[in-house]
Amino acid sequence: MWRRALAEAIGTAALVAVVVGSGIAAVQLSPGDVGLQLLENSLATTLGLAVLIAMFQNLSGAHFNPVVTLVDRLLGSTARPLDLSVYIGAQVLGGIGGAILANLMFEVPTAIGTNDRATAGNLLSEVVATAGLVLVIFALVRTGRSAVVAPAVGAYIGAAYWFTASTSFANPAVTIGRVFTDTFAGIAPTASLWFVGAQLVGGALAIVLVRVLFPRPGAAAGR
Amino acid sequence: MWRRALAEAIGTAALVAVVVGSGIAAVQLSPGDVGLQLLENSLATTLGLAVLIAMFQNLSGAHFNPVVTLVDRLLGSTARPLDLSVYIGAQVLGGIGGAILANLMFEVPTAIGTNDRATAGNLLSEVVATAGLVLVIFALVRTGRSAVVAPAVGAYIGAAYWFTASTSFANPAVTIGRVFTDTFAGIAPTASLWFVGAQLVGGALAIVLVRVLFPRPGAAAGR
Amino acid sequence: MWRRALAEAIGTAALVAVVVGSGIAAVQLSPGDVGLQLLENSLATTLGLAVLIAMFQNLSGAHFNPVVTLVDRLLGSTARPLDLSVYIGAQVLGGIGGAILANLMFEVPTAIGTNDRATAGNLLSEVVATAGLVLVIFALVRTGRSAVVAPAVGAYIGAAYWFTASTSFANPAVTIGRVFTDTFAGIAPTASLWFVGAQLVGGALAIVLVRVLFPRPGAAAGR
Amino acid sequence: MWRRALAEAIGTAALVAVVVGSGIAAVQLSPGDVGLQLLENSLATTLGLAVLIAMFQNLSGAHFNPVVTLVDRLLGSTARPLDLSVYIGAQVLGGIGGAILANLMFEVPTAIGTNDRATAGNLLSEVVATAGLVLVIFALVRTGRSAVVAPAVGAYIGAAYWFTASTSFANPAVTIGRVFTDTFAGIAPTASLWFVGAQLVGGALAIVLVRVLFPRPGAAAGR
Repeated sequence: MWRRALAEAIGTAALVAVVVGSGIAAVQLSPGDVGLQLLENSLATTLGLAVLIAMFQNLSGAHFNPVVTLVDRLLGSTARPLDLSVYIGAQVLGGIGGAILANLMFEVPTAIGTNDRATAGNLLSEVVATAGLVLVIFALVRTGRSAVVAPAVGAYIGAAYWFTASTSFANPAVTIGRVFTDTFAGIAPTASLWFVGAQLVGGALAIVLVRVLFPRPGAAAGR
Repeated sequence: MWRRALAEAIGTAALVAVVVGSGIAAVQLSPGDVGLQLLENSLATTLGLAVLIAMFQNLSGAHFNPVVTLVDRLLGSTARPLDLSVYIGAQVLGGIGGAILANLMFEVPTAIGTNDRATAGNLLSEVVATAGLVLVIFALVRTGRSAVVAPAVGAYIGAAYWFTASTSFANPAVTIGRVFTDTFAGIAPTASLWFVGAQLVGGALAIVLVRVLFPRPGAAAGR
Repeated sequence: MWRRALAEAIGTAALVAVVVGSGIAAVQLSPGDVGLQLLENSLATTLGLAVLIAMFQNLSGAHFNPVVTLVDRLLGSTARPLDLSVYIGAQVLGGIGGAILANLMFEVPTAIGTNDRATAGNLLSEVVATAGLVLVIFALVRTGRSAVVAPAVGAYIGAAYWFTASTSFANPAVTIGRVFTDTFAGIAPTASLWFVGAQLVGGALAIVLVRVLFPRPGAAAGR
Repeated sequence: MWRRALAEAIGTAALVAVVVGSGIAAVQLSPGDVGLQLLENSLATTLGLAVLIAMFQNLSGAHFNPVVTLVDRLLGSTARPLDLSVYIGAQVLGGIGGAILANLMFEVPTAIGTNDRATAGNLLSEVVATAGLVLVIFALVRTGRSAVVAPAVGAYIGAAYWFTASTSFANPAVTIGRVFTDTFAGIAPTASLWFVGAQLVGGALAIVLVRVLFPRPGAAAGR
């Protein structure tokens, strides 16, 4: 169990380091061109996230995301019950550690985010982004295609950076981690709470969608 | 059946939300740089479309496109007959809903498109783009490689954004959906009719090409 | 046989249409930014080429390239002898047709290329690019991984656009096709002859490399 | 054995040619836009590295990296013992040859790098980047997924260009090769020694992580 928790912590830390670090690099290298910055940030995340899931999928399931862990438990699709608090604790601590690691690599001081992202459009975006993320994962798992979850989730987040107004955080542990950097990818603490709330709503919506569209675990539905 | 129709509606809505939403984000973040905007828009669509097909392929076939549904019926490659009107209705309604969802996420008013795209080069482009899209799908299906349809179609559309003059709509439901936004990806109603006509011509051309090049369903041809 | 020749003609036409068309779009949309133009051009080609090979691989082998056809014959790795002249003729005619199709879609007049690319660095680049292309294909085929040739060749060309000085034509049929457009991807007739010569040298070099590194067809070498 | 050494030399040469060549092209085509240059450089490397590993994986293991060769020996996961000095010598000579080849293709004089990259942030970045690289490889190999090492390592390096401050060399042979060009991807000799030292520390850290997270070769750990 501790090995799986360690994998969740390292994986979530690496994910946040990718998001925050590539954001810092993008702003340093493409000053004044926000679109190009987000393109660099999103492509790095697409590639990095796919690799991280592939790495740890066979070990911990590679959730790196409390919403995924919660939905996994509620849908009962895991053979072994997980210790929810251990998983989620590891993810949140990992997320914070990843932001600090990125700050250290780029020699940027660790500071609390000041980017207030809590607008109505952004919160709707987080609901949509999180619901979509969870639906992608369980659609593939429940139709026997776990092996393509890694590239699919990387690609999904890469697209969601752009098709949502919020750039798609879609992950409470990553959101909390991103509070600990005052750079491109940072977020203010109050906004982070709104984001986490919207993500939980998205997760609940996804449970409904999974149950309706893919009712039988481990098999294609509706056929 | 209703579950498959729901999957077509949600999938087409998500596809249009990706196209329209990433277009709005691209214009907001890269103002004045149309090439970079289209690069952002096309990469988001490449990634998002591949994921959407992978998600729903085992459930509804993941057509998201009336031309694909029609050709599928005419080539008789589906084991079960589909209710054409239900599928196409779900796709069109989903397409419209996806445009409205993108408008809401970006807090942009829903308005009818004013981008008049109906030029001779664009209509030739739509014939070519749609014929190619259908040929990609049936070439892979008829040679037993349905599992790679999702990344292949995503990649095809990503390329077709650039090698056609029309940025490759290639899909009547998406075209109609894109009427309901007056943003980067929008299209004027009259032009949308011309586009749909060209797409139907492309679909007919594809039927000829599939019959000539891949005459036997489910097997490699010409060997 | 005629079906395989038709596949080679259509595939090569589509490949040149992707290269030329995306080049025209890139110049129109990103005027004055040559780097961004080549990025758009190269990403469209990466995606499009991978799809085209996947489409036609089971039908004609998806050579789309006289050097690949020649090396395939000389290495004797094909079960059935091909009619070389039919294949190469189809490829060259397809290449020319593809350039004209791209010109038509973008409403650009078909004219002979004036871009004189014949420098020493470019010719060395074409030798390297073509040798690498052929080695990629036969390394994968001779180790039983034909199924990944399509994405691998797309990725290879996408990289070779950038790591060579010539932007990596690496294909006589595509080179001849690109004579028939006076746009971003065009090439002057005299330079095209130099390029084809360098590509043949690259193909000969590749035969040596394949024989040394992967001596046994259909099996991993050197183990 | 000599065939495997030759594969390591050619593969490492090609890798450095991709890194250095695409860096030269990027600076020539996107002058003054460092962010776009690194995007071009990193995407070319992502694609090229994935192809090179796929090409040579069945022949030499496609290490192209002395740290990977050393860790492979220390973890004892190779069925046959390798001649370390032959492998590492081939990699270093290949790396130097690849830089010279890139210089020749772009008609740039071969000169010793002057880019002094040895900062604290960069050295921490190299430790992180190398540890991550080795962990990706052995996580996949030890869970029976060697077939996805090629795209995963390409994607990892593509992300690491951005999430590290050093642009992620993560490879002593590539670092030494990059001393032999005074262009975008070059590095000063003294800095290269610091980088190699940090990479060895990263490799040692990775051995600990592999042993803890994936203790049993060839099987999923912790389940």
